[in-house]
Amino acid sequence: MKEKKMSTLVAPKDFSPVADAEAIKKACQGWGTDERAIISVLGHRNIFQRRLIRLAYEEIYHEDLIGQLQSELSGHFERALCHWILDPADRDAVFANSALKRATPDHRVVIELACLKSPEELLGIRRAYKFRYRRSLEEDVAAHTTGDVRKILVALASAYRYDGNDIDKEMAKSEAGILRDEIHGNAFNHEELTRILSTRSKAQLNSTFNHYRDIHGTSITKGLSGDPANEYLEGLLRTAIRCIKDPRKYLAKVLRTAVNAVTTDKDALARVIVTCAEKDLAEIKELFLKRSSTSLEEAVANSTSGDFKEFLLTLLGSEDN
Amino acid sequence: MKEKKMSTLVAPKDFSPVADAEAIKKACQGWGTDERAIISVLGHRNIFQRRLIRLAYEEIYHEDLIGQLQSELSGHFERALCHWILDPADRDAVFANSALKRATPDHRVVIELACLKSPEELLGIRRAYKFRYRRSLEEDVAAHTTGDVRKILVALASAYRYDGNDIDKEMAKSEAGILRDEIHGNAFNHEELTRILSTRSKAQLNSTFNHYRDIHGTSITKGLSGDPANEYLEGLLRTAIRCIKDPRKYLAKVLRTAVNAVTTDKDALARVIVTCAEKDLAEIKELFLKRSSTSLEEAVANSTSGDFKEFLLTLLGSEDN
Repeated sequence: MKEKKMSTLVAPKDFSPVADAEAIKKACQGWGTDERAIISVLGHRNIFQRRLIRLAYEEIYHEDLIGQLQSELSGHFERALCHWILDPADRDAVFANSALKRATPDHRVVIELACLKSPEELLGIRRAYKFRYRRSLEEDVAAHTTGDVRKILVALASAYRYDGNDIDKEMAKSEAGILRDEIHGNAFNHEELTRILSTRSKAQLNSTFNHYRDIHGTSITKGLSGDPANEYLEGLLRTAIRCIKDPRKYLAKVLRTAVNAVTTDKDALARVIVTCAEKDLAEIKELFLKRSSTSLEEAVANSTSGDFKEFLLTLLGSEDN
Repeated sequence: MKEKKMSTLVAPKDFSPVADAEAIKKACQGWGTDERAIISVLGHRNIFQRRLIRLAYEEIYHEDLIGQLQSELSGHFERALCHWILDPADRDAVFANSALKRATPDHRVVIELACLKSPEELLGIRRAYKFRYRRSLEEDVAAHTTGDVRKILVALASAYRYDGNDIDKEMAKSEAGILRDEIHGNAFNHEELTRILSTRSKAQLNSTFNHYRDIHGTSITKGLSGDPANEYLEGLLRTAIRCIKDPRKYLAKVLRTAVNAVTTDKDALARVIVTCAEKDLAEIKELFLKRSSTSLEEAVANSTSGDFKEFLLTLLGSEDN
């Protein structure tokens, strides 16, 4: 029951992969495509069901469902729907690759994958990345970055942290001190911060962050801002810390920023909704509402349109969809 | 048949885990321990057989075989024998941890694990390390090192390279140039070299090293030497390159250096023999002989003694053992 509340996806228990594959095929045939029909099927199927539909589609029509949809649809709707059909690790590999290949790379996506996922999930993404692109994730991260940004991104993307709950309190205290010295000494390269952020377990890091606030009376993210020469790097470090401290709060903030931008950041919006719809989007929605005047559904409805809007609202569990 | 020639281990096809466990127990009982009896059993069992003996021992005597042997035996013999019983990934995790914890850490061991093993094997070692030490491998590497040494070691230990055979020849050429510029420009931190060495696939790196030699008329390892201020770092980089270029040649060199040292490097000797005995030690032995006046067996016999000597010679497939 708890699982249901966290997820926003509305999916039937009973379904027929063959009937769904046929319904999608029908929606693609003839003059024009019936996007609503496609959404009404795929927008209401969980990961396991989507996997079976894709297999059934391949079996019946001898073509890949994703390839078919890519040729029928376009724009943000097509991309979000195809991401939705992919297995999570493969989808994240695609997110990372597109973020790196953009004219203005979105390094935040790499940090999200590295810091929001569990160590085993991150490993799965790295495996999927190698399989899909015949290069390693960290290889592409390193090749597309330089200097201190490279150092922090490669270190985070290569991490395979201990994920138990053991905490060394003395170490947390001493490393809180090291971080404070480094941040306030304006050590621009943040070498120790990079080491600590990229190798310590998340439980240990949260203890260190708490000590930092207790000892210094201010959060580490506040300490990490205001250096104009280092603004971009500091922003990335803050992102990493926020992802580790409170993943859902961080994701709610990504959604707020996405819908409040002058031009809606549709990539970020779709990324979070597609990724979290069958995980913990219900909780993220609540956190979103706490800091906004509108609900996430209203915000999405106001800042998007057409099939893309319908699809996101469907994943959000909106009653009409 | 090919497999047999590569390995030096002599193990019977038929064996009884229970009889072996009982023989070991008997050798441990009474006044003094019968080390030869233990060697004659465990020195002639492959990984699968050792695993079953350990399970049988636990089942019959309700104690761990390794704990028992640690309390009965001592010194290099005890350590080598216990390493031999461990599963390879777990054993490598132990090698890494002991190398880091030494008064004078042996960073070469970390480089060997990172560069000699396949990406999946390295991952297995990282997993075993976390399980055993409740910290990540790269976490301990980073905590025990500083500066440029830390950068290269952490990057290599965190790598999860692409391991296909695809080679981008243009990239190999251009990166050979980048490396040459960096090495000859005396860029002390070797940032690009670290990036390339730690992220590119081994096939790609070997192509880059070949281009380096073709273009510049000298090998990259030759280029990486002679800077007195950077001697240690350059040594580590050369080690990494040698491991990637030719693992067996590198291991033969480790053995030569170990037996030729003023005080035999027994740790290195046992590490290579225990690790390779049932893999490719036969080939390493041949490479050893090519550059030495004595065979590896003779060299081991001359530079070690007692049960340690007997055990290593047994693993080397020496006829008398």
